[in-house]
Amino acid sequence: MILEISVSEIKGRQETFLTNLKNKGCDAALLFSVTDIFYLTGFNFRPSERPMALIVDGKGAFSLFVPKMEVEHAREYAVITDTFDYPEYPGITHPMEYLKQVLQDKNFSALSVGVDAEGYGSAKGYAGPAITALVSFAKKVSIKGVVEEQRYIKSTTEIELIKESARWGNLAHSLLAKYTLAGGREMEAESRATQEATKAMFETLGAGYRPYGSPAHAFYRGQIGPHSAFPHSQNQNALFKKGYNVVSQAACDVWGYKSELERTMFIEEASKVQEEFFQHMYEAQEVAFKNIKPGIPASTVEQEVQRYFKDNGLTQYVKHHTGHNMGLLNHEAPFFDLGDHTLLQAGMVFSVEPGLYVEGLGAFRHSDTIVVTEDGMDMITYFPRDFESLIIG
Amino acid sequence: MILEISVSEIKGRQETFLTNLKNKGCDAALLFSVTDIFYLTGFNFRPSERPMALIVDGKGAFSLFVPKMEVEHAREYAVITDTFDYPEYPGITHPMEYLKQVLQDKNFSALSVGVDAEGYGSAKGYAGPAITALVSFAKKVSIKGVVEEQRYIKSTTEIELIKESARWGNLAHSLLAKYTLAGGREMEAESRATQEATKAMFETLGAGYRPYGSPAHAFYRGQIGPHSAFPHSQNQNALFKKGYNVVSQAACDVWGYKSELERTMFIEEASKVQEEFFQHMYEAQEVAFKNIKPGIPASTVEQEVQRYFKDNGLTQYVKHHTGHNMGLLNHEAPFFDLGDHTLLQAGMVFSVEPGLYVEGLGAFRHSDTIVVTEDGMDMITYFPRDFESLIIG
Repeated sequence: MILEISVSEIKGRQETFLTNLKNKGCDAALLFSVTDIFYLTGFNFRPSERPMALIVDGKGAFSLFVPKMEVEHAREYAVITDTFDYPEYPGITHPMEYLKQVLQDKNFSALSVGVDAEGYGSAKGYAGPAITALVSFAKKVSIKGVVEEQRYIKSTTEIELIKESARWGNLAHSLLAKYTLAGGREMEAESRATQEATKAMFETLGAGYRPYGSPAHAFYRGQIGPHSAFPHSQNQNALFKKGYNVVSQAACDVWGYKSELERTMFIEEASKVQEEFFQHMYEAQEVAFKNIKPGIPASTVEQEVQRYFKDNGLTQYVKHHTGHNMGLLNHEAPFFDLGDHTLLQAGMVFSVEPGLYVEGLGAFRHSDTIVVTEDGMDMITYFPRDFESLIIG
Repeated sequence: MILEISVSEIKGRQETFLTNLKNKGCDAALLFSVTDIFYLTGFNFRPSERPMALIVDGKGAFSLFVPKMEVEHAREYAVITDTFDYPEYPGITHPMEYLKQVLQDKNFSALSVGVDAEGYGSAKGYAGPAITALVSFAKKVSIKGVVEEQRYIKSTTEIELIKESARWGNLAHSLLAKYTLAGGREMEAESRATQEATKAMFETLGAGYRPYGSPAHAFYRGQIGPHSAFPHSQNQNALFKKGYNVVSQAACDVWGYKSELERTMFIEEASKVQEEFFQHMYEAQEVAFKNIKPGIPASTVEQEVQRYFKDNGLTQYVKHHTGHNMGLLNHEAPFFDLGDHTLLQAGMVFSVEPGLYVEGLGAFRHSDTIVVTEDGMDMITYFPRDFESLIIG
């Protein structure tokens, strides 16, 4: 059972990053993205007013710059050579002045430095100068997107973590479907399903399980009955009624890795019109599945789905593109979108979720998580997708 | 019962913003901060790959730039004059090209424009050019922090929403304390308390309640027994043991507004050493409460707390500053910090949470939410703080 990324895999990521850095003409790097820093070091930081940064020096050593209160945490969990810290934010001396000192000691003024941003960027009360206003580099190179691209293709272990996530998302979803009964309320079904799935998850996986996010959960976010036609729905603790279509969401974090499972379900019965929209949504998802394979642009998948909708006179009901990459964030690039021509590669993990939104009737959308393979794709989520299985209650 | 910010209050915020804008020498503005946009329009946006922006034109009209799928949402909920939209991100034409067209039509090239950032900034797969690389303004003025400062002082209604948040946080916390029993498990106590409090909240407040975040919840985040000494604790579904000190957190979103309630509690009994650290933490919080009043710098509160710790030989156990402002985010500026000399004003809402972290023993920290008044402060959270009340189980 794989529940985390190993130290050696993180070291491999660092090697790849160093190569990417060289290819950009950089001797060193300074990163502020908390997701990229977690990916490259295993250090899971809760962003707040207190800034942090990853320093990759001219010798290729990785160090973390953190608030004093995080030093033990960084030393215990992060795959790094060293830590540098500052007392507190804002502090008598601004943290960026401490960072400046570290960079000067590491001779960054003589180096070509890749930076992903001009400074730390949390919205939670942080303010500070651009680091480039405090320290001069021989050359400054923007490397925004370099680690993000490195994250596009998932390793075998990352796929295992996403599969583990899907397993517990499936449990939460099964329980949500079971507790969705006409006359019942949204919130009670959600919290009961979430609580039971989370409990089973902790008991099964034991102390080795670190969510770095939320354990198994399943909910509707207000996508109940006609209200589900609005993608912006919020939980209203709505009442389940016979004949409603509902759209679920189930997910789970495993060491920060995510999966996505969504189903259109019908309470006790569905009308002919509901069934018709459902079947078109199902077929559109099939079209995507049949087209996904390495070597084609992501946009091709979207073109084929849009073609299906157009051929069936459904374009007016479409509100969004077909899917997104995922991993440490629930939405990542690339996208199944008309404008995204990134070539698909084995190891990319996507949601597939073409949707139809019908005013007065509701939403029709499944979302499945898939991984691109050498000759096509594999499903990661496995909850039944067919109409008969999704009449619940 | 107040459960939302009224249209007239939002219009008042817009008037104040227009005045602030004039004071910065700006004729118009372009904002990308989702929190500031929610504050100024009531439009609650879930950030993803799809960018959005608030346009304040030369006539003082507020418009939203959103993805097509959010147009109905914006029209229904946002206090704005107009919406402009783009089909999808990345799309065949990049959304920023659509935004460029809107700004050109509104003659931004002839205006002095305040911007809070160079472009949209979500980490969830978005990439795009700086808007200033596409459109030239007569003058570009950075207004980063202007709305954030406007948010420092809460209105009567905002304080009511924070009090409503505290009320339900208190219920979740009471239930958490009740279900924390020696031999029991962290997750079960947390999820039971959260579920029951959330249910009571929905049933009491009815359909008028929109969380824009999470309903009532209470948890320990792994701060159980000696492990609580690490502020980075994560939920481990730990076992409660007799004599442990535990540190709770309870909160709740009401139309996006937050409160913070944390307590150091002891399971069945506490040792003399535990009691001693507890009483010092209690006294340090009292020191803060006694000093908070309008007109003094925020740093004074921290100085007095640090003085108390120093006088009692406790400085080595301190890991962070005493508190932070809050509102639409759980941490906002200003801070009770040695380096934050912002003058306190009536209507500012702060956490007060001096903490002591003792290796091998655990954490000692309460957090209360307070509001600065005309002549001092009022408590918003009201769970018992004293030692006797916090022996539980």
